[in-house]
Amino acid sequence: MALDPQNTRRYRISISCPDTFGIVAAVTQFIAQYKGWISEAHQFADPEACTFFMRYEVVADSLPFDLDTFKEKFAPLAEQFNMTWNITDSAERKRAVLMVSKEAHCLSDLLYRWRSGELNIDIPCVISNHDDLRSYVEWHGIPYVHVPVDMSNKEPHFQAVREQIAAAEADVIVLAKYMQIIPEELCEIYPNRIINIHHSFLPSFIGARPYHQAAERGVKQIGATCHYVTSELDAGPIIEQDVQRVTHHNTTKDMVRLGKDVEKAVLARGLRFHIEDRVLVYGNKTVVFA
Amino acid sequence: MALDPQNTRRYRISISCPDTFGIVAAVTQFIAQYKGWISEAHQFADPEACTFFMRYEVVADSLPFDLDTFKEKFAPLAEQFNMTWNITDSAERKRAVLMVSKEAHCLSDLLYRWRSGELNIDIPCVISNHDDLRSYVEWHGIPYVHVPVDMSNKEPHFQAVREQIAAAEADVIVLAKYMQIIPEELCEIYPNRIINIHHSFLPSFIGARPYHQAAERGVKQIGATCHYVTSELDAGPIIEQDVQRVTHHNTTKDMVRLGKDVEKAVLARGLRFHIEDRVLVYGNKTVVFA
Amino acid sequence: MALDPQNTRRYRISISCPDTFGIVAAVTQFIAQYKGWISEAHQFADPEACTFFMRYEVVADSLPFDLDTFKEKFAPLAEQFNMTWNITDSAERKRAVLMVSKEAHCLSDLLYRWRSGELNIDIPCVISNHDDLRSYVEWHGIPYVHVPVDMSNKEPHFQAVREQIAAAEADVIVLAKYMQIIPEELCEIYPNRIINIHHSFLPSFIGARPYHQAAERGVKQIGATCHYVTSELDAGPIIEQDVQRVTHHNTTKDMVRLGKDVEKAVLARGLRFHIEDRVLVYGNKTVVFA
Amino acid sequence: MALDPQNTRRYRISISCPDTFGIVAAVTQFIAQYKGWISEAHQFADPEACTFFMRYEVVADSLPFDLDTFKEKFAPLAEQFNMTWNITDSAERKRAVLMVSKEAHCLSDLLYRWRSGELNIDIPCVISNHDDLRSYVEWHGIPYVHVPVDMSNKEPHFQAVREQIAAAEADVIVLAKYMQIIPEELCEIYPNRIINIHHSFLPSFIGARPYHQAAERGVKQIGATCHYVTSELDAGPIIEQDVQRVTHHNTTKDMVRLGKDVEKAVLARGLRFHIEDRVLVYGNKTVVFA
Repeated sequence: MALDPQNTRRYRISISCPDTFGIVAAVTQFIAQYKGWISEAHQFADPEACTFFMRYEVVADSLPFDLDTFKEKFAPLAEQFNMTWNITDSAERKRAVLMVSKEAHCLSDLLYRWRSGELNIDIPCVISNHDDLRSYVEWHGIPYVHVPVDMSNKEPHFQAVREQIAAAEADVIVLAKYMQIIPEELCEIYPNRIINIHHSFLPSFIGARPYHQAAERGVKQIGATCHYVTSELDAGPIIEQDVQRVTHHNTTKDMVRLGKDVEKAVLARGLRFHIEDRVLVYGNKTVVFA
Repeated sequence: MALDPQNTRRYRISISCPDTFGIVAAVTQFIAQYKGWISEAHQFADPEACTFFMRYEVVADSLPFDLDTFKEKFAPLAEQFNMTWNITDSAERKRAVLMVSKEAHCLSDLLYRWRSGELNIDIPCVISNHDDLRSYVEWHGIPYVHVPVDMSNKEPHFQAVREQIAAAEADVIVLAKYMQIIPEELCEIYPNRIINIHHSFLPSFIGARPYHQAAERGVKQIGATCHYVTSELDAGPIIEQDVQRVTHHNTTKDMVRLGKDVEKAVLARGLRFHIEDRVLVYGNKTVVFA
Repeated sequence: MALDPQNTRRYRISISCPDTFGIVAAVTQFIAQYKGWISEAHQFADPEACTFFMRYEVVADSLPFDLDTFKEKFAPLAEQFNMTWNITDSAERKRAVLMVSKEAHCLSDLLYRWRSGELNIDIPCVISNHDDLRSYVEWHGIPYVHVPVDMSNKEPHFQAVREQIAAAEADVIVLAKYMQIIPEELCEIYPNRIINIHHSFLPSFIGARPYHQAAERGVKQIGATCHYVTSELDAGPIIEQDVQRVTHHNTTKDMVRLGKDVEKAVLARGLRFHIEDRVLVYGNKTVVFA
Repeated sequence: MALDPQNTRRYRISISCPDTFGIVAAVTQFIAQYKGWISEAHQFADPEACTFFMRYEVVADSLPFDLDTFKEKFAPLAEQFNMTWNITDSAERKRAVLMVSKEAHCLSDLLYRWRSGELNIDIPCVISNHDDLRSYVEWHGIPYVHVPVDMSNKEPHFQAVREQIAAAEADVIVLAKYMQIIPEELCEIYPNRIINIHHSFLPSFIGARPYHQAAERGVKQIGATCHYVTSELDAGPIIEQDVQRVTHHNTTKDMVRLGKDVEKAVLARGLRFHIEDRVLVYGNKTVVFA
């Protein structure tokens, strides 16, 4: 066991199901019979929702089969407990399409994490309604797709965006300060797969100009919220949040700057949780096995 | 100058006035002509409101006059700059009436700070609509006034409360988890002198059962807000705020416990700012010279 | 399953053992065969130490036996995996002896948490080398034992302290600002059962006058550390730590006050972890299943 | 006064001098006589050191003279109070030479802040002992100077570095993860002008491999410290510090990643304070007028 399980390929099993006894025993018994090595384990039961959640990581090489065989063998057990479940392979990097407008702080932060190997994703392309960030993105060897918006008719824009995302075979879409409201249709194609960063501590200051609202209300902390996008504006399941202290000395310009720092940190954490399959959504809430 | 200015009696000068040049020069010139020793100084100009704020502390013994003479001599200068102003003496402890219901966490915290000398106030009495905390308060040698509420007619309760506060000659009223809505009339008698602690990060979750609301919304941080009470529920000027991280593991019971810790810390800080005359209110906002 | 598992009696199983596969399967299989209801579960493997740790909570009434029978039935499994293990009953409150000197902030905080039901402990007595806090402790109905120290010969003091602790049948000894160094002998009688709060972010500023040291060094944050006491001063396994921002404006007196707030929060969290059997010590480190 | 003083050119006056009365009056009187508009003001007196510090910002266009005339007129006053003083012009961007090794997180963060206009500096060049980050730096249009180190004789390296810095006319040198110890001679040429980011909460874990040390000691928070470089390793005046919570779940790899996030945030804040002349050093400590 000299192997460092953190640095090896792992299978990630995510499960939610009606709570009952014997779930963990059955799952771990299943893993143990194949001499699987569990490198990380989380479980949680919501007593109100009577729902059980678990996420296990198993060192891939400790199991005698590939991902498909794993799923096939696991299926009967999943059916027995009426599980909503998923197994992924840490070696299969998720394909993340980034969408931006003109502001570069989140994009720049994510691209650093990507090129340094900190964020284990592929980025098939960056889509933007502006052309401003093309050169920076292309330096990274990533295609930049400029899809302008006609403000009087946004339908063609979103039609083109939809096609680009489909062509990119995106597993996840990251709205890294993409300042357009996503139409309901697109939300429904990618449920719990479109991640937004909102510049307030939701549910405070929903909608436009949250810093202006925050300054008006005289709050002493400003925040940011990373959430999945649903058809209801700024109301999807929250993945991660954080805040930053402000004082009367901070001008609106300062608040924008400080807010950007919170935004990029919160989005990076939320995206990491997502790509490592740590976020389980139920109702309008999340369990995050961080 | 071997004297520690932090441990000596000080005059505290608070000023707000229309912004113009020469204010600080005039004030400091005034202090310097009497050889006053400034031990702390803060100033701030809000460019949007065109309003200037300052708060100075001067070592009392370095000035050749008492508080009344100080005010008298300062008045012409104040008039010249159209100041709203106040000078207080750190040796004159403010009289703080505490109001509680059944929950003891804020009360217990404030009484510890009071009896250890950390909070420089007098507490003429604790007023409650319940009798539960009598023994604890009385151990401290502080009168406990039980004023029951008739839920079908709250008017007599608040009439009695008003009389008690008046009799106590309260400078500030601290709602240390007093779970009744203060009637407009009482708010108007004590503008910016009634301090409440609200168990959410306002403006999120205004009104009742904020933890329940927070749990429903799946937020990742819970907060507390210390604010002045105005006739609009939970909408008065914010003095201080803070948050505490929560996860799915935290039950509502945990959130209540964690929330209490934030509440008592935020209320204690907010009250300290108030009694040291560090809070200047303008519009519905505050400048806090912490 | 309408029962709230958080509010019912639970058995808490803590295990550390050499890492191998099948541990969780065996333990959960054992629980499942008796239809035990797992209400909380944590596990962790340290790849460097090749050691596995787990802590499970099981709803007591879901199992068909009492604590002694549970242990008896579990013993063969424990032996099989070479476990260091323990099972406790949440209904059996730990007996915590508090030791104090003159400062009341930690004591006051812990007593509030105790009398409000937030801290699930019994307090057989408070031991002090001074008589200052007697009245406050006795108001709570808790015996106060004054054991003076002869600074030229501390041996009789510690002899008496040892006897008092033994007579109190203490499960845990909490040094809530007890300002004496615990002799090695006493440390060895109660390994990982004496909890101290140290007023710095250890390992910074070991020993006396940490705020003075911190001010000298010009740090921008001050901290506190809750740790188990070992014979090496301030070097035992760390349970919990936190920090608080300070600025040049903060006098040493301010730092003491701010430091007290961190101290009491960190000690309360650390003690909670301990009494809920969430802390597993290995080497000079801890796993805290919070 | 419709002007936003935050967005206009300002003169920044920094002063430290023996504490006495009349300093602020004299300085503000000086400013007022020219109808100067003070847009920000901070002052502080250290009673132990009997030293007074102040920093004022004055809207440049409100004064009838340029920087040189300002200094000339101010000099007699400075002499009268025995001031160590400086006046700078916010429009004169400081020249910051960045020094890096192979790790890009701080560099990447600073370059984002620079190109987005958030950091008001000029970057004449980036100096490195490796060639790895050349392309990234050059994309920004900034010269990249590769100066290899001969580990058996570092003298030529530092000779070349010294010449490059001199040629660049650097106002400040930022060690953005430059992993070499700066020789005493270079420290003395640029006192309080070489800024380092150290990956621990100093004075904890001085020297090499701080995360390894932190993991050994089992700390619950990891930190970072931004400080001026002096000839004593990791012991110069601290500008800024912060910490980040870690748990047993965090591998050394996680700690490195989390530590990088703290490092880049702390360095960016510390550098901002420096370039805005907000840091006044005395003894081995700093006053930071943030």
